[in-house]
Amino acid sequence: MKRRLHHFLNTRIFSQFIYWLIVSNVISIILESYASLRGEYGDLFFGFEVFSVVVFTIEYVVRIYVAPIDYPSVNNLQARIRFLKSGYGIIDLLAILPFYLPFVLILDLRILRILRLIRLLRIFKIGRHSKALRTILEVLKETRSELSITFFVAFVMLLLSSTLMYYFENEVQPENFASIGHAFWWAIATLTTVGYGDVYPVTPIGKILAGVTALIGIGFLALPTGIISSAFVEKIKSDKENVQCTCPECGHIIEDK
Amino acid sequence: MKRRLHHFLNTRIFSQFIYWLIVSNVISIILESYASLRGEYGDLFFGFEVFSVVVFTIEYVVRIYVAPIDYPSVNNLQARIRFLKSGYGIIDLLAILPFYLPFVLILDLRILRILRLIRLLRIFKIGRHSKALRTILEVLKETRSELSITFFVAFVMLLLSSTLMYYFENEVQPENFASIGHAFWWAIATLTTVGYGDVYPVTPIGKILAGVTALIGIGFLALPTGIISSAFVEKIKSDKENVQCTCPECGHIIEDK
Amino acid sequence: MKRRLHHFLNTRIFSQFIYWLIVSNVISIILESYASLRGEYGDLFFGFEVFSVVVFTIEYVVRIYVAPIDYPSVNNLQARIRFLKSGYGIIDLLAILPFYLPFVLILDLRILRILRLIRLLRIFKIGRHSKALRTILEVLKETRSELSITFFVAFVMLLLSSTLMYYFENEVQPENFASIGHAFWWAIATLTTVGYGDVYPVTPIGKILAGVTALIGIGFLALPTGIISSAFVEKIKSDKENVQCTCPECGHIIEDK
Amino acid sequence: MKRRLHHFLNTRIFSQFIYWLIVSNVISIILESYASLRGEYGDLFFGFEVFSVVVFTIEYVVRIYVAPIDYPSVNNLQARIRFLKSGYGIIDLLAILPFYLPFVLILDLRILRILRLIRLLRIFKIGRHSKALRTILEVLKETRSELSITFFVAFVMLLLSSTLMYYFENEVQPENFASIGHAFWWAIATLTTVGYGDVYPVTPIGKILAGVTALIGIGFLALPTGIISSAFVEKIKSDKENVQCTCPECGHIIEDK
Repeated sequence: MKRRLHHFLNTRIFSQFIYWLIVSNVISIILESYASLRGEYGDLFFGFEVFSVVVFTIEYVVRIYVAPIDYPSVNNLQARIRFLKSGYGIIDLLAILPFYLPFVLILDLRILRILRLIRLLRIFKIGRHSKALRTILEVLKETRSELSITFFVAFVMLLLSSTLMYYFENEVQPENFASIGHAFWWAIATLTTVGYGDVYPVTPIGKILAGVTALIGIGFLALPTGIISSAFVEKIKSDKENVQCTCPECGHIIEDK
Repeated sequence: MKRRLHHFLNTRIFSQFIYWLIVSNVISIILESYASLRGEYGDLFFGFEVFSVVVFTIEYVVRIYVAPIDYPSVNNLQARIRFLKSGYGIIDLLAILPFYLPFVLILDLRILRILRLIRLLRIFKIGRHSKALRTILEVLKETRSELSITFFVAFVMLLLSSTLMYYFENEVQPENFASIGHAFWWAIATLTTVGYGDVYPVTPIGKILAGVTALIGIGFLALPTGIISSAFVEKIKSDKENVQCTCPECGHIIEDK
Repeated sequence: MKRRLHHFLNTRIFSQFIYWLIVSNVISIILESYASLRGEYGDLFFGFEVFSVVVFTIEYVVRIYVAPIDYPSVNNLQARIRFLKSGYGIIDLLAILPFYLPFVLILDLRILRILRLIRLLRIFKIGRHSKALRTILEVLKETRSELSITFFVAFVMLLLSSTLMYYFENEVQPENFASIGHAFWWAIATLTTVGYGDVYPVTPIGKILAGVTALIGIGFLALPTGIISSAFVEKIKSDKENVQCTCPECGHIIEDK
Repeated sequence: MKRRLHHFLNTRIFSQFIYWLIVSNVISIILESYASLRGEYGDLFFGFEVFSVVVFTIEYVVRIYVAPIDYPSVNNLQARIRFLKSGYGIIDLLAILPFYLPFVLILDLRILRILRLIRLLRIFKIGRHSKALRTILEVLKETRSELSITFFVAFVMLLLSSTLMYYFENEVQPENFASIGHAFWWAIATLTTVGYGDVYPVTPIGKILAGVTALIGIGFLALPTGIISSAFVEKIKSDKENVQCTCPECGHIIEDK
């Protein structure tokens, strides 16, 4: 029984069904945000939501039940706890939790709305088996410390830049640069080269600072790209490098690096 | 006869003629879009269009006729079908189809206008023989799965970001963030760092989300660049690596990794 | 005594304390910039500032005192001067100087405000021990000359572009393009692809120049990224390349390039 | 005499003088663009211009005179013609030509103003001896064909995108999207992610097209960066690879690639 259920979860047809259910859920969340559609088809949206949650709940319960097959070395309970604590176990839970929560807790409507968003996380269930995604995640993991430092340095730059800008522009534009926090909004739009154009310096010194910030922004774009590039180059190389090297004198084979 | 036509299609003078005809076509489409020019020189534009279509039709028919020379291993009919189904065969057809379609079908003027755009695809006929273009396409092909995953992840980010933003800003700016679809327009302008500035958050929490989205956008810029970079590095290396290094004195072969 | 103090400065608990004091300082500077908070909690901010300066001053004095342990080869005075002239010695001084300056010199309130910003530099004290930061700084140092040339070329481009734009747009938009300096503001926003949208060309020739500038901007983004990428690739390779591969049977050494 | 002049041109002091003269010229051109400064110090600017042209003219004449030392293998006349046709010979000429032209030709004031801009090219005389600049130029030269193809493809994308956008938005915004040329301005601001925000689509289909264009723009940013990155990696590698490889059997040295 357990085996058959486990097999069924991994069949192509069931994966496809879950895939399309997730996609439909995402589309329904988007459509529901249109006031006119919400008014007219509200019941339909709710019905589909109930149906989805029922399916996802059953899937979740079955996955807990069959967990011992995926984690064979331990006893049943431990295997199930392992699944519950794994990344997909948590996503599976988060995907259904927002629906059940209002039954247990009395929640502010505001918080509830935000909670319902978590349903969107269901989309992450799609990426489960992609090799390319794994490669990307590995590269990001390897370059984690360099990337975090880059973002930390960027954050310090943002801080310095927005504090200076606050002092330069506060008097001329007391609205747009009312505080360092306000200036931070400008700084982030500049450093990331988004440049909405809702706030920008008008004093000459402020403009010079903005120019310098934008140029530093170029460097800030270049650094993570360079880090990630080199990690990909390294990854491809190390994937290939299991090649052996034979000593030309005695024929002894040496594992090459 | 077939051979002579085939030879003629590959002469420098004919290629040049087609090249300039395509360029003139593109220029004429652009000029035609100016209302004043369309009014004054409408007949000229139409005349040139008829001339171009006649030339391209003859070229298309001749290319079908001489296809057996390009695909020698099969019989005439199969060779011609092969050409019709090849990339260039389809482009050649699409380049002339929009002109003939209204004679066969009764079409809405709106659809017709869009169809006439397909004429622009003629420009792709220019790239037929570029080695550099082939290198680029090969690199893009090799990195296809990584690039698609990156864009899929970017799409999920866009979705999450725009849904959150919709909940944050909907009340304050019911016009700009009327639905998740509207918020998506903001999200794409932010993640790609375009930043038109027609919509942007005004609430503090919305601004924080926008900042995070812009910073993630930097990562989103870095990933495809890193992937493509490493593929180019790999390509150059593998082009060189077929070299073996033989000792000219004793004939000992050293694998030159 | 000296040894014990030196040991204490390097304990985890003291580092953590300084770390949180710096973070609190940064947060307090940001909060202080909000007019309402400054009005209400002005005394608190001042009190915290005095407390911080006292701590940082004591730390600074102690670090001068224990410098001979960090620079053992020279005599005490020289060791202390060495510390004073080191990067961290200067940061430590700058972090407290703005507080004491008004006692010694009579300063314009304007200058004072800017000086107080230097306090933000305290945040650089955090990065003291990061290996990843050192890697990034080394890469930036190695590519220094290429990067500076890139920025020099970018500067020349900005100059040419803004001068041309000034001649093209000055008559039509005498406000926005009042001088080459004004046009430079536009040029930098375009070349770095920030694009605030407060100034943009309106004449056809100006728009063509803007398009060319934006396309050159792409190249300007690509160059530093390429330079930094290759330096990272090189760095990883050279870190690995010290490995020599010795045949364990006959002792023959093969240079493992 | 010729030798002494040639030596003098290459002295540090003369290079420094020319360097600062060029920098002063650039600054003076920028300052001259401010209407108020032009009014007050017009004579000063003119005097400085005359002085600069005299110096640059003498330098140009002397460089022609001493050319045989730089190109020793040919006779004097050929050596001088060689210098005149070299990159720096042309820049040296262009730097002084605009001053003399009005004496020979009667020129429209408009054209004259543009011509005077050529003076800015003097700044290129500064880069004469930079090794890093040469590295960058070599890399750009090697990747020339890939980069031009990338820009060609980008151009085709711009064309398709702006033509489609023209058809989508022309009716709703007849001002901003009056022709394909107008739409091209939007397309270039989007593909390069500048995003001024003066024109943007308002129809749903137009917004989708804009989003797709912006996403393609990311790819367009990634391609040249990847190409340049790999060329830099290759360059560093080939600079190092003159290392020889010794056959371990007979000791014969083989040039390694």
